[in-house]
Amino acid sequence: MTKGRLEAFSDGVIAIIITIMVLEMKVPHGADLAALRPLIPVFLSYILSYIYIGIYWNNHHHLLQAARHINGRILWANLHLLFWLSLVPFATGWMGENHFAATQVALYGIIMFFAALAYFILSRVLVAHHGLDSALATAIGKDFKGKVSLLFYALAILLSYVNSWFASSLYILVAIMWLIPDRRIERNIIP
Amino acid sequence: MTKGRLEAFSDGVIAIIITIMVLEMKVPHGADLAALRPLIPVFLSYILSYIYIGIYWNNHHHLLQAARHINGRILWANLHLLFWLSLVPFATGWMGENHFAATQVALYGIIMFFAALAYFILSRVLVAHHGLDSALATAIGKDFKGKVSLLFYALAILLSYVNSWFASSLYILVAIMWLIPDRRIERNIIP
Amino acid sequence: MTKGRLEAFSDGVIAIIITIMVLEMKVPHGADLAALRPLIPVFLSYILSYIYIGIYWNNHHHLLQAARHINGRILWANLHLLFWLSLVPFATGWMGENHFAATQVALYGIIMFFAALAYFILSRVLVAHHGLDSALATAIGKDFKGKVSLLFYALAILLSYVNSWFASSLYILVAIMWLIPDRRIERNIIP
Amino acid sequence: MTKGRLEAFSDGVIAIIITIMVLEMKVPHGADLAALRPLIPVFLSYILSYIYIGIYWNNHHHLLQAARHINGRILWANLHLLFWLSLVPFATGWMGENHFAATQVALYGIIMFFAALAYFILSRVLVAHHGLDSALATAIGKDFKGKVSLLFYALAILLSYVNSWFASSLYILVAIMWLIPDRRIERNIIP
Repeated sequence: MTKGRLEAFSDGVIAIIITIMVLEMKVPHGADLAALRPLIPVFLSYILSYIYIGIYWNNHHHLLQAARHINGRILWANLHLLFWLSLVPFATGWMGENHFAATQVALYGIIMFFAALAYFILSRVLVAHHGLDSALATAIGKDFKGKVSLLFYALAILLSYVNSWFASSLYILVAIMWLIPDRRIERNIIP
Repeated sequence: MTKGRLEAFSDGVIAIIITIMVLEMKVPHGADLAALRPLIPVFLSYILSYIYIGIYWNNHHHLLQAARHINGRILWANLHLLFWLSLVPFATGWMGENHFAATQVALYGIIMFFAALAYFILSRVLVAHHGLDSALATAIGKDFKGKVSLLFYALAILLSYVNSWFASSLYILVAIMWLIPDRRIERNIIP
Repeated sequence: MTKGRLEAFSDGVIAIIITIMVLEMKVPHGADLAALRPLIPVFLSYILSYIYIGIYWNNHHHLLQAARHINGRILWANLHLLFWLSLVPFATGWMGENHFAATQVALYGIIMFFAALAYFILSRVLVAHHGLDSALATAIGKDFKGKVSLLFYALAILLSYVNSWFASSLYILVAIMWLIPDRRIERNIIP
Repeated sequence: MTKGRLEAFSDGVIAIIITIMVLEMKVPHGADLAALRPLIPVFLSYILSYIYIGIYWNNHHHLLQAARHINGRILWANLHLLFWLSLVPFATGWMGENHFAATQVALYGIIMFFAALAYFILSRVLVAHHGLDSALATAIGKDFKGKVSLLFYALAILLSYVNSWFASSLYILVAIMWLIPDRRIERNIIP
């Protein structure tokens, strides 16, 4: 079955993305505890992005589990999603090194916005292939969380130059929203 | 079945190649938007190579799907293909950093040429193993796109010192040619 | 089955962690044997962490093998474990470069402590999902080694500023304890 | 079946090792062809190690294919093999950067020797678990090539300070010996 290889490839890319991010935390040359202080914002941005990538992996996992067949269009919609996720380590490192400054927070939001859009496109392409009355379409439903995420990312980008910490807290809010278990969906998707 | 591990290994290598390329976009030390400007050509070369690697993964996926059995010769033809693909991040980074200059564009073409040749060899070795009247042989067919790609790469190498931007646009053309869905093949290969 | 993808993703992350650690051993610029001398403590810390990650992979392997089904809570408990393991290369590199100095040995212990805690949580979440009378719960048993490890890590953290080499030897002791085959568990878990 | 995860993990590690090696070929800062000249020995050492890792993957693939069950001892023998292979990128980069000088060629041989030894141990542990009259034991046979490799590595280490190019050519010889298809084994192992 073709789906297995799509999942395996996505798993590989996501696993590497999540692990490459940690490389941005460069081993410090100093030997005392103070040498870790400049790494604190980098570490915080790492935690945030780790949770985001974890959420994407979780959602991707559930989405593909409900999928029955794959076509060329779905393969490319998936690669498109992985493209935006592959930029997350860059945006994370830049944001952490610059202590969540306005420009960096905005760029982080832009990449998160496009990743969320790519996920939305992937889910639409999957529904188009499986039919509006398929189990997959029912499982995706209205995708309320997905739409709220897009809105919050857009808001964060706009507000980043006003108050970058407020904008950053919007990213945390989106992450928390996804972490709260959504029993309805899990009941529908996980067999 | 032996095919599974060949696919898994190839997936792993391709996933790492695609993610390693993004490491060439080094997190800038500057904090303002202008710090991103020197990264623009690196980013463009990343997009180009991402699409190329995506195409290879797609084609590899379809090719192996039609394969029934594997032998030592096929394993090595596959490793040969992965060898040339493993050089893509290097060529991509060098081309991006030097703003698509002649030498870099030529080297990019050379590596793409050999990768395409390696793919051609892999498909021939697979056909030799499965027989000319196998489903796999029918699915590969005359491999028109593969031959055009080789021609365009050769052209781009020759023309890179004349006009490196024209040569680069040949690479974009090849990518677009592969992105256009080829319904005939998909109908034949995807079950 | 959903378990397969959880295992594949964990395998990917663990494989990358184990291989990224080796990157901390930077290729020296000197050409003589003496150029390798400063790498000796880095190499020793690499061996220690390699064994630790190997133990985690082994235990993870056995734990998941006994698992029958997966839910969202288990996915996140697993991601939580991988988070702490992803910090091991950083702690390893810093400890090696600073010749097992107090601060670095303490940080190593802290990360190992939280990784062990995360593993403990994962096993509890799995038991909660499978039931206290499941084969999985029987296989995990009282988890004596897990509790001793937590104790030893805590001890090593406390003692690192007293004698960092003694604290380091506690890490070696924990590793040896896990390497000694535990026939009872293997008989129970491996079918 | 437990074997699948052992293979998947090994595939992951080997895929990363093979791709990490290419990172030793740093993108040069110069823009002309001459900037590539210092990379030539690095490139040659990359090709050599790529082929070696390819051979190991091939052999590992065949070995595990003949295996029926796995135990803790086999898991560790496998991790031991991967440990030595994980040092190959380091040895390769150092050898390439120093133009195949004596010390570097000797170190390369030492790591190759221990990798070959680890492979030998893995095959013995597998035979011990499957029985001397198992299909696996028959397939491994007398392991003539494995023994010759060990001998050649030892020779190369001893001769590296006499003539490092001669020692290097012994590595090439071993690689060629493994590349020559061994129809007898393939007939026995591949079903």
